[in-house]
Amino acid sequence: MSTASGSPTPVGTGPSVVALGGGHGLAASLAAWRPLAGELTAVVTVADDGGSSGRIRREMPVLPPGDLRMALAALAGDDQRTQELATLLQHRLGGSGVLAGHPVGNLVLTGLTEVHGGDTVRALDTLCELLGARGRVLPMADVPLDLVAIVDTVDPDDPQRSRHIRGQVAIAASPDRVRSIRVTPADPPVHPDVLAAIARADVVSLGPGSWYTSVLPHLLVPRLRAALADTPARVVVVLNLEPQAGETDDFSPEQHLRVLQDHLQGVPLHTVIADAGAVVDRRGLLSAVQECGATLVLAPVAAPDGPPRHLPELLTAALATVLPGAVGAR
Amino acid sequence: MSTASGSPTPVGTGPSVVALGGGHGLAASLAAWRPLAGELTAVVTVADDGGSSGRIRREMPVLPPGDLRMALAALAGDDQRTQELATLLQHRLGGSGVLAGHPVGNLVLTGLTEVHGGDTVRALDTLCELLGARGRVLPMADVPLDLVAIVDTVDPDDPQRSRHIRGQVAIAASPDRVRSIRVTPADPPVHPDVLAAIARADVVSLGPGSWYTSVLPHLLVPRLRAALADTPARVVVVLNLEPQAGETDDFSPEQHLRVLQDHLQGVPLHTVIADAGAVVDRRGLLSAVQECGATLVLAPVAAPDGPPRHLPELLTAALATVLPGAVGAR
Repeated sequence: MSTASGSPTPVGTGPSVVALGGGHGLAASLAAWRPLAGELTAVVTVADDGGSSGRIRREMPVLPPGDLRMALAALAGDDQRTQELATLLQHRLGGSGVLAGHPVGNLVLTGLTEVHGGDTVRALDTLCELLGARGRVLPMADVPLDLVAIVDTVDPDDPQRSRHIRGQVAIAASPDRVRSIRVTPADPPVHPDVLAAIARADVVSLGPGSWYTSVLPHLLVPRLRAALADTPARVVVVLNLEPQAGETDDFSPEQHLRVLQDHLQGVPLHTVIADAGAVVDRRGLLSAVQECGATLVLAPVAAPDGPPRHLPELLTAALATVLPGAVGAR
Repeated sequence: MSTASGSPTPVGTGPSVVALGGGHGLAASLAAWRPLAGELTAVVTVADDGGSSGRIRREMPVLPPGDLRMALAALAGDDQRTQELATLLQHRLGGSGVLAGHPVGNLVLTGLTEVHGGDTVRALDTLCELLGARGRVLPMADVPLDLVAIVDTVDPDDPQRSRHIRGQVAIAASPDRVRSIRVTPADPPVHPDVLAAIARADVVSLGPGSWYTSVLPHLLVPRLRAALADTPARVVVVLNLEPQAGETDDFSPEQHLRVLQDHLQGVPLHTVIADAGAVVDRRGLLSAVQECGATLVLAPVAAPDGPPRHLPELLTAALATVLPGAVGAR
């Protein structure tokens, strides 16, 4: 067990980092990696079927843009112009019609993908350039995915003990406890730049984020899992600060980790970062971390007030400890 | 009567030009003015209620963005990056759902206006900067307008000799002949930057474009008409190459001009530009031009092949003749 320490590596000369995830969790991870990473690549879930992304997926054959857009905004440059652009991309249209709720960036990414003949990666690179992004955003698969969960029914009168639930929204909305999860199609194509980024990475991070729908999906894509099993990079997991309603109700940090461990299938795990204040049973968590063959970094990474969230500066300090050469790094 | 001549004035030191209009006609006018104008301001109709603009107007309280977007794209910088951005803004979303057909730029302008608390002019300025625009795009009024036409019925069995038709789409779709047209609200607010641009202009141009729905509406807004009546600028009208179905069926160039003259109400007219090949009755047109107290410039401004359209380089040469100091300018 080590504690957070070490000073940030200068930008540009720092390590090559690949951050896996989706949604607000990935945005927090990217914000934390920015000051540390020389090269930063976000590999983003494309399994969302809810909200604006879901509406767009049902209308046209593109990747769900929402998680990709959030990663773009998280990597936008610091100057006023690019920050205003990021604000625009994140802005959700108002009114009370069929456009209401669509973030402008989802529509821009979708349109730009169409302009580029369906090439999402080219569209993302164009937007990264426009945003002066401090890194690159790539989709975890080249085709939209659906999550399929096997859940244990919680209703004692339900004649079925378990059932399949398809789709991220349906899984999150179901009160039933997720037993296992897979993606469909089962072996989707993965962009070669994703595989290359993982192969040359110094560090790969998973989480924080919606455990079943933003963190685990990357391990369910066989080509991505194979790349993660082969990379010489240190693999770091950032645990969530609290259980998520509908996904991981009542899950302790060690239960989160055990679920992840069940899906590793050869992917090594080197470091687990947990917020000191979020852990009730330190011994239990340490035991689970050691079962994975990993080191536990217990550090204050949560914002001191407001709703539970990772504070980028604190998470940066914790991530710095896992960099090659840092005190406490394996 | 003079013919097109004169060499373009260098950009940046050329005259101050305000181009009024909408749609493809205004885009053609802006493309032609670009090499001549030192300062170029597009003042764009906001009376469209069809297509994507109409759908957006019905959903949220913003100016119809379509004509504004086209003017932005027409002024985009020449380098590859800004041209790609212009292509993106002009791209219409695909698929078969509720988003299909919306140009990305309409959604971006709408979203950016919302981000700026309803300030369309600030949103337009931001987009102009992003596009490296060779000029400025302003709306002709600060609120969305509706056109109301009094039409003479063409059906002899129709008990009514004339009726009111409200809305640009309805007017264009009606087979009845437009007798007069007005806007509602009758005296909309006009942005002070529009009035200032007209007051300091060296040249103001109207047309080409949909006569009743893109060219005349500017003369129907009292504050705009007053500014046009007061400006020391030369006022130039570029006539269309052919009648437009549903709006000006069978209209000769001189009939277009007479309709315009009926709406001038104190606005001076200095030069009328017509394509030499589009005029059948030169004597009739010259007589109509002289009635307006204007000079006729007959010049080859139409593209030599393809559907009838103004060729920017040719229109540039014709417009150059009306600049202060040019041969043939009043």
